[in-house]
Amino acid sequence: MKILALDSSGLVASVAVLEDENLTAEYTIQYKKTHSQTLLPMLDEISRMIELDLSTLDAIAVAAGPGSFTGLRIGCATAKGLGQALNKPLIGIPTVDAMAYNLYGCTKLICPLMDARRNQAYTGLYTFVRKEGAYQLQVVKEQCAVPLEEILQKINEQGKEVIFLGDGVPVFRKQIEELMQGEYSFAPASCNRQRAAALGTLAFSYLQQGKIEKAEDHKPDYLRMSQAERERKEKRSLSGDKN
Amino acid sequence: MKILALDSSGLVASVAVLEDENLTAEYTIQYKKTHSQTLLPMLDEISRMIELDLSTLDAIAVAAGPGSFTGLRIGCATAKGLGQALNKPLIGIPTVDAMAYNLYGCTKLICPLMDARRNQAYTGLYTFVRKEGAYQLQVVKEQCAVPLEEILQKINEQGKEVIFLGDGVPVFRKQIEELMQGEYSFAPASCNRQRAAALGTLAFSYLQQGKIEKAEDHKPDYLRMSQAERERKEKRSLSGDKN
Repeated sequence: MKILALDSSGLVASVAVLEDENLTAEYTIQYKKTHSQTLLPMLDEISRMIELDLSTLDAIAVAAGPGSFTGLRIGCATAKGLGQALNKPLIGIPTVDAMAYNLYGCTKLICPLMDARRNQAYTGLYTFVRKEGAYQLQVVKEQCAVPLEEILQKINEQGKEVIFLGDGVPVFRKQIEELMQGEYSFAPASCNRQRAAALGTLAFSYLQQGKIEKAEDHKPDYLRMSQAERERKEKRSLSGDKN
Repeated sequence: MKILALDSSGLVASVAVLEDENLTAEYTIQYKKTHSQTLLPMLDEISRMIELDLSTLDAIAVAAGPGSFTGLRIGCATAKGLGQALNKPLIGIPTVDAMAYNLYGCTKLICPLMDARRNQAYTGLYTFVRKEGAYQLQVVKEQCAVPLEEILQKINEQGKEVIFLGDGVPVFRKQIEELMQGEYSFAPASCNRQRAAALGTLAFSYLQQGKIEKAEDHKPDYLRMSQAERERKEKRSLSGDKN
């Protein structure tokens, strides 16, 4: 089975092509350019390098949210466009699950953190459990948008060692150091951000379970309202308009 | 600190740029093209994408062997050429150590395997240990070229669970399944081959410890004689020539 994986949910743009147990190509950039400038050229570059015939793909996996609203829309639009043009199914992977997959084989708690602004983090809790001769990602707490204190409290309650990763770490580091009661550490550069290869590897298990979508049906899961939606709602609420 | 990392020791060609705790760019290809066709174009591609000024690098890290003799020479020549032209130090990272670093945070045994031909594997044994608030790679058995049976016996003696990775896995899988007595598993596509980001992250600790070389002094560590050297030696030995 061959999967194209895309992740533009955060500061990172990442594309990968995986064929069964082989990562054929991966290209990841964390730079100030916007994903609309990088994602398609990066896909074009690796396609050229590995002489990829897009029609041979079995599915297109994409970071399905949460994350940067613009980033998610760029990833989603790219995946939907390709999926519809090529008549291939999409696999939407929860962004925070894919981030946790970076720490494959880690049996401590894994806590990905993205800065969700407005004093919240996109986060969740995970670990790896050995089942049927391989490690599988286990969701301890589903991805969510919560104040940082809430997830740290949950970790403190569990009383287990935790590894943090994600672009939320530099943002929340001081608070983490103040509030954590148990042992914790931070993942290093090789595995502390989104990677399309991690997302794509996780997507294989979705594909095997038939957890696919039609390209035209796929929608990102923002987990929260956008700023525009929120402001419209507040304005209507103030003016007494209930629609 | 900013590091350029190169790994062309095996089937994979991989380049990465890391700045402290951030992976700025990573590009990895596992395809039938030779590394001499891919490595420099890949470096050129990411340099263009992240507007990299090579003179701002602090060091160039390279997979220093063992591995494919031709692959190592391509990586070594590229690193030495850049190092000399830019007047930057080199950091030679043992290939098998860098492979093990793929499984950051894993506290089981980690056994990278490369097919060394002639019924041998380039391999070693590793684990991660938490020290001073972070996980550090610990070498349990240094990288070596040995028959597969020898490393499996060593693992069986240790009696600990192990995760295998590397392009030696598909080659040796059947023997592993026959000879392993304890629990074992195989790393998935996202972390089962060389990655320049893993090598580069490990290189930061070398840089901090001052484990650097002058570009002109760097040599790959093949761990074994090349086929040409071996044949010359055998021929001389047969003819009674001792030089």
